[in-house]
Amino acid sequence: MNNNLINKRSIWTETDATNKARHYITDQTKLPFNREAVELCTMQDAAHAISTMQVRGAPLIGVTAAYGVALMMQENNSDAALANAVKTLKATRPTAVNLIWALNLMQTCLVATPTEKRAERSWQAAFEMAENDILTNRAIGENGLTILQNLHQKYQRTINILTHCNAGALACVGYGTALAPMYLAKQQALPIHVYVDETRPRNQGLLTAMELREAGIDHTYIVDNAGGHLTQHGAIDLVIVGADRISANGDAANKIGTYLKALAAYDNGIPFYVAAPASTIDPTIQNGVRDIEIEERDEMEVRAVWGLSANNAPNASPVFMVDNLTKVANPGFDVTPARLITGIITERGIFAPANILDSLVKE
Amino acid sequence: MNNNLINKRSIWTETDATNKARHYITDQTKLPFNREAVELCTMQDAAHAISTMQVRGAPLIGVTAAYGVALMMQENNSDAALANAVKTLKATRPTAVNLIWALNLMQTCLVATPTEKRAERSWQAAFEMAENDILTNRAIGENGLTILQNLHQKYQRTINILTHCNAGALACVGYGTALAPMYLAKQQALPIHVYVDETRPRNQGLLTAMELREAGIDHTYIVDNAGGHLTQHGAIDLVIVGADRISANGDAANKIGTYLKALAAYDNGIPFYVAAPASTIDPTIQNGVRDIEIEERDEMEVRAVWGLSANNAPNASPVFMVDNLTKVANPGFDVTPARLITGIITERGIFAPANILDSLVKE
Repeated sequence: MNNNLINKRSIWTETDATNKARHYITDQTKLPFNREAVELCTMQDAAHAISTMQVRGAPLIGVTAAYGVALMMQENNSDAALANAVKTLKATRPTAVNLIWALNLMQTCLVATPTEKRAERSWQAAFEMAENDILTNRAIGENGLTILQNLHQKYQRTINILTHCNAGALACVGYGTALAPMYLAKQQALPIHVYVDETRPRNQGLLTAMELREAGIDHTYIVDNAGGHLTQHGAIDLVIVGADRISANGDAANKIGTYLKALAAYDNGIPFYVAAPASTIDPTIQNGVRDIEIEERDEMEVRAVWGLSANNAPNASPVFMVDNLTKVANPGFDVTPARLITGIITERGIFAPANILDSLVKE
Repeated sequence: MNNNLINKRSIWTETDATNKARHYITDQTKLPFNREAVELCTMQDAAHAISTMQVRGAPLIGVTAAYGVALMMQENNSDAALANAVKTLKATRPTAVNLIWALNLMQTCLVATPTEKRAERSWQAAFEMAENDILTNRAIGENGLTILQNLHQKYQRTINILTHCNAGALACVGYGTALAPMYLAKQQALPIHVYVDETRPRNQGLLTAMELREAGIDHTYIVDNAGGHLTQHGAIDLVIVGADRISANGDAANKIGTYLKALAAYDNGIPFYVAAPASTIDPTIQNGVRDIEIEERDEMEVRAVWGLSANNAPNASPVFMVDNLTKVANPGFDVTPARLITGIITERGIFAPANILDSLVKE
């Protein structure tokens, strides 16, 4: 399979000529028009990368936060510095629980480590988290693939999938969650076609389209408004999306607009799947619709778009769509109630939303 | 009330210095950044204005088509020219039934008129249609206002309305359909706030925001993805949208994405109203979801946006969001099933969708 995004990671470490380890991310705010690596030199760089969405996607956010802790530890291995790093990084994005999960894991591990060993230990833990992310996503892909295989068995034709936002390799260290089953379907020559939601206001559909193109997977880009009509007219066989947080009752927070697609799937009797690692589950929240905090993001995301000029070159400055006389609201996520979710695809199997806590029990 | 858009018409006739009647529209493709009048000199100008959406909104499309027939009749009053004008204008937009309604009305009237009187008679009919549109919309506004008054009575606070696309004064000769009750609420100092859907791909939400601002009605612009979340969290009390065609069973075709908002309203137990003149009803179509033809529009609507540059000046050229390696689909409308619609607000009262044909019976 010709897919750079599976082989290439979204966060990685290189050793320079002086044998110093250097840590990089792809600046996703520049994609799909520019592919630029940004070096993370300090904990603040990692925090900035998360809050400005240079890195995005719940799994990648978690790993980037772990890198942030490690960067702090190599600079200052004190308890105070550790606490400060964890606090700063936790505040970068409120919705993604993987962030908290990753930081708690790092903190638990480092508190028990003598200060002089914390730098080494934290890099060990961060690298392990990155490796595990890839294994986890591969397992999600395999579990999700069985759904696609069953539908193909049933219909004996190309399976049409709708996805929202980008829950692909770019949202993870590699591979992706919602897109992982699609990559495996491609490897197995199972015929699929993907409708890609634009995902206003940040148009992460462009990232998904880029990933699918590089993987050679047939796809069509649509505005977020189109999914209801397509679902109603049999153009879509199933929906697969990622998640940023899943509550104990199986409600799933994901990019704003996801809930509307779940309603459309439910109304037309087609399956709606959430693909996410078990680290996305927050057992401390009973009722996700009621209690998951939804981040209100910068109005500029709605007001302005970047893009390509007519000669296909990336624009240097944004284009404003909404003038500044007009008030704007910009909730970043919504929560899909468990009753609309057919199943949650995790690395440990596919779970009914009501049984999602079972996925936390390691075999 | 300070609202130019109610007093100003979207299509109008002026007499020039040589006493020649000249017919104008506002070029809505340039709004909200530029307000430019375009003269309609020939039937082809009218057809072009409709197909390129210089005029848009089902009622205004109908009246513009009537102007188109009249322009042809003053040039060539033959039966062949009449048939050709009707055929050409009918082909401009497939979804809006008002177009067909208006053209059938003109044709029936002109076929029975001696050729030498056709030019005069056709202008008479076109002007009458424009006047009636305003009276009709005022009546829709009055009927819709009772809904807002009842909700205000019930909640004793500002009523929050969600609307999709632009079914305002700009979509009609004046006044609007979905926005008409809001204008009357403003006149009566009934406190309302309107969430305005962006309405990708063409962002007609900008037109609605412009109208509401000029009328001094409080409003907030949101991306199409946000309505589900807001509805789920009690931020919206009711949804009011326009329609392009309503079938005999009460299914309503409207701008793509409307169906998703109807699902969100239904899922959260808030009312969903369609506001449309009786001319929007197509009694020849039994089942709208199944049989209303949905127009697939130009991909460029999805690929490119116009907008303002940083100095607030309208951009001269479009900005491309989707490169041309990516396939795009662009269905222009969707159909909301009658079961999701609380009521249809017409000039003759508010009807349950199942009884919509009763609105065709004139008292």
